[in-house]
Amino acid sequence: ATGQRSMASPGSPSSPTPEGRLAVEFAVPAQVEAAGRQMAAFAQRHGSAGRRVVLVTSGGTKVPLESRTVRFLDNFSSGRRGASSAEYFLDSGYAVVFLHRHRSLYPYSRRYAGVNLLDALRVEGEGEGGGGGSGRVVADHRVLPDVAGVLQRYQAVKEAGLLLPVEFSTLSEYLHLLKAAAQALSTIGSKAMFYLAAAVSDFYIPASEMPEHKIQSSDGPLQISMKMVPKMLSPLVKDWAPSAFVISFKLETDPSILLVRARRALETYRHQAVVANVLDTRRGYVVVVTPDSQTELVLSEEEARMEVEIEERIVSNLTSAHSSFIAQQG
Amino acid sequence: ATGQRSMASPGSPSSPTPEGRLAVEFAVPAQVEAAGRQMAAFAQRHGSAGRRVVLVTSGGTKVPLESRTVRFLDNFSSGRRGASSAEYFLDSGYAVVFLHRHRSLYPYSRRYAGVNLLDALRVEGEGEGGGGGSGRVVADHRVLPDVAGVLQRYQAVKEAGLLLPVEFSTLSEYLHLLKAAAQALSTIGSKAMFYLAAAVSDFYIPASEMPEHKIQSSDGPLQISMKMVPKMLSPLVKDWAPSAFVISFKLETDPSILLVRARRALETYRHQAVVANVLDTRRGYVVVVTPDSQTELVLSEEEARMEVEIEERIVSNLTSAHSSFIAQQG
Repeated sequence: ATGQRSMASPGSPSSPTPEGRLAVEFAVPAQVEAAGRQMAAFAQRHGSAGRRVVLVTSGGTKVPLESRTVRFLDNFSSGRRGASSAEYFLDSGYAVVFLHRHRSLYPYSRRYAGVNLLDALRVEGEGEGGGGGSGRVVADHRVLPDVAGVLQRYQAVKEAGLLLPVEFSTLSEYLHLLKAAAQALSTIGSKAMFYLAAAVSDFYIPASEMPEHKIQSSDGPLQISMKMVPKMLSPLVKDWAPSAFVISFKLETDPSILLVRARRALETYRHQAVVANVLDTRRGYVVVVTPDSQTELVLSEEEARMEVEIEERIVSNLTSAHSSFIAQQG
Repeated sequence: ATGQRSMASPGSPSSPTPEGRLAVEFAVPAQVEAAGRQMAAFAQRHGSAGRRVVLVTSGGTKVPLESRTVRFLDNFSSGRRGASSAEYFLDSGYAVVFLHRHRSLYPYSRRYAGVNLLDALRVEGEGEGGGGGSGRVVADHRVLPDVAGVLQRYQAVKEAGLLLPVEFSTLSEYLHLLKAAAQALSTIGSKAMFYLAAAVSDFYIPASEMPEHKIQSSDGPLQISMKMVPKMLSPLVKDWAPSAFVISFKLETDPSILLVRARRALETYRHQAVVANVLDTRRGYVVVVTPDSQTELVLSEEEARMEVEIEERIVSNLTSAHSSFIAQQG
């Protein structure tokens, strides 16, 4: 499963590789081993049925500032893009490993994300006042529009075993689960896609430099010194899943540097595509950048009004490109 | 409504007061004015009906690191303590202003916090496979134990208008909404209680020192320099609501410094009580510290097994103390 892994000793003090740094600087969280086995079984089952499998990562990572954590650094991300993309991949016949931040948006239920569960239910036959509490509790269709249809799609996907949810909260959990996922999906070669939409922190505080206890405000202003997170795209493409179709995301707030950064990422990691987007316009405009193309995907005002989602376009573009990629690999 | 406000000019450059710093360093968010009016009307209505009103704050504050925010600092808090305490205050006859972090736990629905909405529903008469999608959607009682009873309590509180939810996300929203709440509740004098359970950041980055755009990882390791947040407990007690019954919370990870810190807070701000607790044991043990007493509240193992909540004890202790406080004020 390790492909063309380089022979450099991981974690060598002179020039540590990202993989070496992962092993040395981030302890393996407890849930990784079991999740890795689940993902491997999932990939094998769907791969041997001739189905493509996509790993969708979604939501932001949490970076602790104290070892008994009271404070942490977070990345803005509702998980909307990952959750909606997962649905379009399922619609396109993919099996989906959904590696997402705990409590971020989830496929299908994302439609009702802002709803308080108790506002969505009512006791049947309730008139004025009500009473008893022994009546049957039913969904309120005014609060949950189209709930029967959405529920049916959700349950069909669940029963068919096409969606495997895996959760992370911290950066460390994300990094180790990504490695486990990459190794699990590497067994199906070019039929695997990585769709890395999660908002992963670029910075962290090593455990050895972290205070054990809550930082005291009486100690005065706070200076935080953060180290750069090792870039996992590098071992993922080179070593963990060298035959897979790999898509990364680039989110910027400054449009003027976006495409330069996207092209630089592609040259550095030599993967298949970058989906480039700007914070303010991310729901209506993205550019899919590949080594030899640059495709703008745009929603018109009319489409936005009709609640067309740009993720439908992104997934459609990438599943076609994935087909060509598989054909080329033979 | 400003009570014995001091005459020092707020925001004077020599020695700015916390209130002055709030005005100068934190722009007033758009929603504060309307929320202030709502809270004032709520306090007046319940106050004139002879009802006590408590402001419960709950959840953590978000501190942006960039003005177009991709990254932020957060405080660990699910909002569990605030949400459950709000229920016990309602049970004790209080009207509750629930000032909480967007999407943190909420009274009553907190019981089902981990539940995916779509896992909690099923189409009626569903056997094997199902179909149609036209059936009625009902709550699954195995996933939502006691839902009819919980729903009934939730709806009764809502219909009686006893719970006013107000949301914050950022530190700035929290601080300005706290001030607006304090001024709103000051009109009912000693019948107002402040139960400040939110996990408020001690540190922030002033807007003037914040980068506009996303911090680039290619710029190398990150140095963050954070300023101390002005302590709002001081103007709240002295100026905004000088007749109210005010409770703050002290959460530490190191038990050895807990009571010293709690006593120091009480001496500094001269409010009525500090609820002191340690991160690891906070669900089974707290100390209520007042100027002349120190009361340990502990759940036995048997009580913990029976799912007795320590918030029931905390609220019972404080509502009694509030009664004495009101009686003393005459």
